[in-house]
Amino acid sequence: MKKIVVLQGVNLNMFGKRDPEIYGTVTLDEINSRLQETGADLNMNIETFQTNSEGEMVERIHKGFTDKVDGVIINAGAWTHYSYAIRDALDILEVPFVEVHLSNIHARDAFRHKSVFADIAQGQISGFGIESYTLGLKALQPLMK
Amino acid sequence: MKKIVVLQGVNLNMFGKRDPEIYGTVTLDEINSRLQETGADLNMNIETFQTNSEGEMVERIHKGFTDKVDGVIINAGAWTHYSYAIRDALDILEVPFVEVHLSNIHARDAFRHKSVFADIAQGQISGFGIESYTLGLKALQPLMK
Amino acid sequence: MKKIVVLQGVNLNMFGKRDPEIYGTVTLDEINSRLQETGADLNMNIETFQTNSEGEMVERIHKGFTDKVDGVIINAGAWTHYSYAIRDALDILEVPFVEVHLSNIHARDAFRHKSVFADIAQGQISGFGIESYTLGLKALQPLMK
Amino acid sequence: MKKIVVLQGVNLNMFGKRDPEIYGTVTLDEINSRLQETGADLNMNIETFQTNSEGEMVERIHKGFTDKVDGVIINAGAWTHYSYAIRDALDILEVPFVEVHLSNIHARDAFRHKSVFADIAQGQISGFGIESYTLGLKALQPLMK
Amino acid sequence: MKKIVVLQGVNLNMFGKRDPEIYGTVTLDEINSRLQETGADLNMNIETFQTNSEGEMVERIHKGFTDKVDGVIINAGAWTHYSYAIRDALDILEVPFVEVHLSNIHARDAFRHKSVFADIAQGQISGFGIESYTLGLKALQPLMK
Amino acid sequence: MKKIVVLQGVNLNMFGKRDPEIYGTVTLDEINSRLQETGADLNMNIETFQTNSEGEMVERIHKGFTDKVDGVIINAGAWTHYSYAIRDALDILEVPFVEVHLSNIHARDAFRHKSVFADIAQGQISGFGIESYTLGLKALQPLMK
Amino acid sequence: MKKIVVLQGVNLNMFGKRDPEIYGTVTLDEINSRLQETGADLNMNIETFQTNSEGEMVERIHKGFTDKVDGVIINAGAWTHYSYAIRDALDILEVPFVEVHLSNIHARDAFRHKSVFADIAQGQISGFGIESYTLGLKALQPLMK
Amino acid sequence: MKKIVVLQGVNLNMFGKRDPEIYGTVTLDEINSRLQETGADLNMNIETFQTNSEGEMVERIHKGFTDKVDGVIINAGAWTHYSYAIRDALDILEVPFVEVHLSNIHARDAFRHKSVFADIAQGQISGFGIESYTLGLKALQPLMK
Amino acid sequence: MKKIVVLQGVNLNMFGKRDPEIYGTVTLDEINSRLQETGADLNMNIETFQTNSEGEMVERIHKGFTDKVDGVIINAGAWTHYSYAIRDALDILEVPFVEVHLSNIHARDAFRHKSVFADIAQGQISGFGIESYTLGLKALQPLMK
Amino acid sequence: MKKIVVLQGVNLNMFGKRDPEIYGTVTLDEINSRLQETGADLNMNIETFQTNSEGEMVERIHKGFTDKVDGVIINAGAWTHYSYAIRDALDILEVPFVEVHLSNIHARDAFRHKSVFADIAQGQISGFGIESYTLGLKALQPLMK
Amino acid sequence: MKKIVVLQGVNLNMFGKRDPEIYGTVTLDEINSRLQETGADLNMNIETFQTNSEGEMVERIHKGFTDKVDGVIINAGAWTHYSYAIRDALDILEVPFVEVHLSNIHARDAFRHKSVFADIAQGQISGFGIESYTLGLKALQPLMK
Amino acid sequence: MKKIVVLQGVNLNMFGKRDPEIYGTVTLDEINSRLQETGADLNMNIETFQTNSEGEMVERIHKGFTDKVDGVIINAGAWTHYSYAIRDALDILEVPFVEVHLSNIHARDAFRHKSVFADIAQGQISGFGIESYTLGLKALQPLMK
Repeated sequence: MKKIVVLQGVNLNMFGKRDPEIYGTVTLDEINSRLQETGADLNMNIETFQTNSEGEMVERIHKGFTDKVDGVIINAGAWTHYSYAIRDALDILEVPFVEVHLSNIHARDAFRHKSVFADIAQGQISGFGIESYTLGLKALQPLMK
Repeated sequence: MKKIVVLQGVNLNMFGKRDPEIYGTVTLDEINSRLQETGADLNMNIETFQTNSEGEMVERIHKGFTDKVDGVIINAGAWTHYSYAIRDALDILEVPFVEVHLSNIHARDAFRHKSVFADIAQGQISGFGIESYTLGLKALQPLMK
Repeated sequence: MKKIVVLQGVNLNMFGKRDPEIYGTVTLDEINSRLQETGADLNMNIETFQTNSEGEMVERIHKGFTDKVDGVIINAGAWTHYSYAIRDALDILEVPFVEVHLSNIHARDAFRHKSVFADIAQGQISGFGIESYTLGLKALQPLMK
Repeated sequence: MKKIVVLQGVNLNMFGKRDPEIYGTVTLDEINSRLQETGADLNMNIETFQTNSEGEMVERIHKGFTDKVDGVIINAGAWTHYSYAIRDALDILEVPFVEVHLSNIHARDAFRHKSVFADIAQGQISGFGIESYTLGLKALQPLMK
Repeated sequence: MKKIVVLQGVNLNMFGKRDPEIYGTVTLDEINSRLQETGADLNMNIETFQTNSEGEMVERIHKGFTDKVDGVIINAGAWTHYSYAIRDALDILEVPFVEVHLSNIHARDAFRHKSVFADIAQGQISGFGIESYTLGLKALQPLMK
Repeated sequence: MKKIVVLQGVNLNMFGKRDPEIYGTVTLDEINSRLQETGADLNMNIETFQTNSEGEMVERIHKGFTDKVDGVIINAGAWTHYSYAIRDALDILEVPFVEVHLSNIHARDAFRHKSVFADIAQGQISGFGIESYTLGLKALQPLMK
Repeated sequence: MKKIVVLQGVNLNMFGKRDPEIYGTVTLDEINSRLQETGADLNMNIETFQTNSEGEMVERIHKGFTDKVDGVIINAGAWTHYSYAIRDALDILEVPFVEVHLSNIHARDAFRHKSVFADIAQGQISGFGIESYTLGLKALQPLMK
Repeated sequence: MKKIVVLQGVNLNMFGKRDPEIYGTVTLDEINSRLQETGADLNMNIETFQTNSEGEMVERIHKGFTDKVDGVIINAGAWTHYSYAIRDALDILEVPFVEVHLSNIHARDAFRHKSVFADIAQGQISGFGIESYTLGLKALQPLMK
Repeated sequence: MKKIVVLQGVNLNMFGKRDPEIYGTVTLDEINSRLQETGADLNMNIETFQTNSEGEMVERIHKGFTDKVDGVIINAGAWTHYSYAIRDALDILEVPFVEVHLSNIHARDAFRHKSVFADIAQGQISGFGIESYTLGLKALQPLMK
Repeated sequence: MKKIVVLQGVNLNMFGKRDPEIYGTVTLDEINSRLQETGADLNMNIETFQTNSEGEMVERIHKGFTDKVDGVIINAGAWTHYSYAIRDALDILEVPFVEVHLSNIHARDAFRHKSVFADIAQGQISGFGIESYTLGLKALQPLMK
Repeated sequence: MKKIVVLQGVNLNMFGKRDPEIYGTVTLDEINSRLQETGADLNMNIETFQTNSEGEMVERIHKGFTDKVDGVIINAGAWTHYSYAIRDALDILEVPFVEVHLSNIHARDAFRHKSVFADIAQGQISGFGIESYTLGLKALQPLMK
Repeated sequence: MKKIVVLQGVNLNMFGKRDPEIYGTVTLDEINSRLQETGADLNMNIETFQTNSEGEMVERIHKGFTDKVDGVIINAGAWTHYSYAIRDALDILEVPFVEVHLSNIHARDAFRHKSVFADIAQGQISGFGIESYTLGLKALQPLMK
């Protein structure tokens, strides 16, 4: 079974509360349940992690490196647009990672159009709500040996 | 059964020949077969279309509007980065469309980072090779009523 | 009688279907009828031409050069903003041409603010719906010897 | 009969004197006579106003608001390119206004390409000499209820 | 008692008429009454001045310099964004001045984000409707010796 | 009584030590005492919070959302200029927040001119030293129902 | 005898009061006396004019055109950097004009580096205090036939 | 004998008609005859191709790939400056291609300074009229094995 | 003996693991040992500190201010390029600090060329691997009284 | 008697040969004679120096520093726009220097609008042909104690 | 026989030593021999000149002007990208000059894409190694009367 | 013993005279003595070279290439910011070179922030006065085999 970590960044614990017309009403717990189900279908062992601290996020990524996870999904929230610290942490990984976004970041504020991780990610999936995560898992599957 | 059109833009008939280290060796026919299989699994009727003529692409999108397709997948190739004509055609559609790319456009030449369609798409999937198309179909599924 | 060509660019065959709050519900046929009426009033022989192919548009302009038309009206749609090919074709003309737009291009997306033809046109008329065309014809009239 | 104000901005009292190869030799009085004629044809009551003082222009626009004119034509001269004060005054109006220019502003100095009013105007007509004004009146006609 | 001048710039005589959803329905007279009341509370002698003429505004500021006022509040309206003439006049003052705006200029058109006075002001207060003025007076109070 | 949270960002615990010519010699404790006094006058229940951790700041804002505070004052220090994470947290709030700065940010380093929160704030007050906070409280008062 | 107009722009009536370390303590009257003396030496009839109103400046330039002055010296103050209205007025002149500045505009705020008149002036003299004016007169002398 | 394709882009069928002061009076047929002569001298089999359709140009390049031509000369006209579609087609070629221009593109409109193909071409020759083509053939010769 | 703090920023605990072709295989412990040796030679008391939390870094710098260290070496990792919070903390210090980088930041990604601390540092040393630290200590030595 | 050095930069030995419509037909020798005459009138000892070598120009400026000249006139030709080496040499001088240009640099190619010396010069005189030099000498006179 | 000067700029004496994968292994002597041969074939008298001193290059171009050469080939090396001094010298020439580069400057560092001479050259040839020179000579031939 | 060349660029012969508050009062001779001492300590044979001529600097670097020096230290003065000629010369070297600056170039004029050599240097040391040189030598030591 493949070991996958799904990383949820800053403010994502507020899903379902914030801007429902953009993000919908689904909560982080519901996203996690859904990820577990999909993981079971795909024969993946899914661990989820959310933090509002950049430092904790960086260290969780380091742990992924040490623990030799097989793949990473990351929705870094607003950090996507400026945290070169998280970029450098992701760059240490030797396994593929996929960047996902619930909303279509290319259709929102100009500052959200640019991801500072995207050029080192395997790929980016943006705009499909909670489905972005399950699509991310499916995208990872064939990439892991 | 939902009617889906998969639009392939300029130069994509050369898949499998061009830059194999970026795009792999899969051909357009193989992509189309794969799309038919996935479509069958998802109970979708898939029509595929490739052209190297911007005008034909625009008119195929108009036809999709008239025929009332249920969803559109588009990989417009290099047109992605400058064809406001195709953007305007897509904007006429009243159904969701998903933009897909085999390679990760955010990790290549600077001119490929910007899509002139992305802000009116439902979402964008980029970087997963042939899987980008099947992920696109899966992303479309829950978006169609 | 003066010979005038009215050139309609990409997606303009979809008038009346696309974004009615921006472009209204008038169709291309209705615009053409209206142009014929105004032409009759102004003692002009009006020929109308629409295409979604940049190459056909370029060649229709070449034909106008060869046929020695007396004036040209052009609404090039989205090509207005990037087709230097059409610009170069228009630049070959030795008669005045007028650029028209149904919507006010200066009040829409930033990419629509800039016309790549405007500096070689006689003038630009933008924002008056179907009237933009008839104003264009009236503007042409005193410019032709 | 509709009440129309035609606003002439800074330096326009010098028409016929300044750069005749760009603006022709017609004087402001001749333009005004011509506007009165066209107004009579179109069943419009035309009032014309010229000033070289930004403050007077702003207050004349305020007066148009208070007097409930039916439409406004404005050629603000060089103010077009920097007077946000006049823009804000025009924005108070609840009737359509049309921006006109004798010369084609898109074909002259770079600083003249950008109008700070254009995005709140009904439309813009540029490049037809004195005809730009009469085209402006004709453009206004169907816009007034 | 301290002598304070409150300067109201271009178009501000139209308060209560223009864009009520942005500026509210309060009129300039009401703002002035309110300023007098607050001035009385704060033991300030308030003089108010409104003009639509840049030249008059400049000269009113010169007069403040000559009359040795103790402080200045200015809401210059659209001049805020381009009138270096008013900036230079304010720079002559040897007493503190406070820049105020009814609306939040940082949340409106891009051209309104930049004030050409802000770097020589004591401070800036923006976004609190009529309260911006009374907050400005309160801000001035401890700054005057 | 209204519940107000005053949020103090990174390095603000060092007030009174850092750059006294810019920030004065007042300490954070003195600011807090002053805020309590003003709060008592305004019949507000003031809670103050300072942190040097972006994550803690984000979570304190979330808590404000959950606890249904009536208004927020924030001086985010240097985070003002790049922390889109804090912006997104503030955006979740359904009550007005006011951005305050002791120094006039528009008169300092270029990187300080731009606040990434200002467009979603109710308003911004900058340049009045410790008074910026009390002005912020007074600005909040009429905004809370 | 040649007829010369020396135009003094906005705020220049405050010379000797404003920023003495930049502009010195000389007053406008002293500058004018000095200009009269130099004019007498150079056999020029010098008329001086100062205004804080852009409109009056524009009309004074028009009058110079009508009166057929032989040359113009202009120090437009802050208008130098944005008044395209004054630029257009100067452009009507058919005699040489010289742009002068007391301070070295290239050594001050970035916004002062760019003059919107300089490209249509005969030349520019900047940085020599009151001498800039007398040098301007001497520069004009050989340029007038 | 080497197989060379000379590709002529949009509007180039109008050579000899358009802007003779820039492009001279030579026609496309004359250019082609000249290319045949030079080809004979250089022992090259020259095929020439002109189109005004971007799609046809792309497909002619694909055919060059399939037919295993030995080298390509391209003058893409205005497409040079925006057609990333043609760039991508050229990028598929495994043989050298040379970009040629009759006029010196670096000495004309700013938009013509940048070629979107130049960085993947073997080299660029610009400014020598019809000689640019024959120089291009001579440049290709030593590059083909 | 001088008290020196060596601050190691985000991801630097991963030295020896990350991108060995850029950073080499030396670990943070080895760097620290080496710093202790060099410190002993230079008669400096070296304290080292690494954190992945911006807040902890800020507070460690505050502690350096309170404890009156004699000098600071900082390699802030990716924070170098965006953390104005750390910049402001460093700015509070009254002793010299030296910015060091193992790799030559001017030869890597464009976002790494700009340090937001460099203009307030004593100096910058970049590109000498582990030697950058010992050179930093040697650079500090003569700067401390 | 004051000692003045007049420095002539690159290509200026070609005066009278190059672009006579811009620079006139006067030669460098004639300029030098004229400078000697004016110098005699102004009781100045004028030394002139021309070089096409940046290094020689730098060293001549150093010599001016060592020899304690009283003032410097410089027309650096094209170096004006990029030679920071000459700027640094001029910055060493402790006496005033005046930058002069025969043509109006603000009315020519964009690259000539910016002088890299202007902000450290006493002032700039541009556009008066050979008179620019004599005006420069007159400008220097009152600046020397 | 035509007199041609071939100018070789800075560092070009190192050909064959520097970056052989970019410039090949051919030496300057070999290039010169090749140029002599081609010159003989084309009935040209070729003089070659190399210098690392900008001043010497400028003066060699002046000499070409005085000696009335018939044409010039220049490869200015890195000066191509910033030496406006050499540009001005070339601009004095009244005969055609051709700019050549061994490598394709449009495919290398961004700073090499822009030539400060290209807009005044007859044309530019770039990317063909030593052949660039012989192509340059052939390009010159028909341009000389 | 290793052979090291220390290259001193334009104006550096004036050390001790120019801007002592920036560069200190140390002279070039003192720097050279200090370098000899440090070289002796490090078992290096130090040759120093200063020139104000770009061409001589380029040729001295070429000589370093031919002579097979083991390492280079360069402080190019103002050339650092624009001399691509020196950059290209340094790029020919096959041994490490270190860029040094007495002052912190990142804390001075904007034009000094960018070094055109830094991306091809081994590293950069800036801001430590005369110590920058000795640190440079120490940095070179472990880099030479």
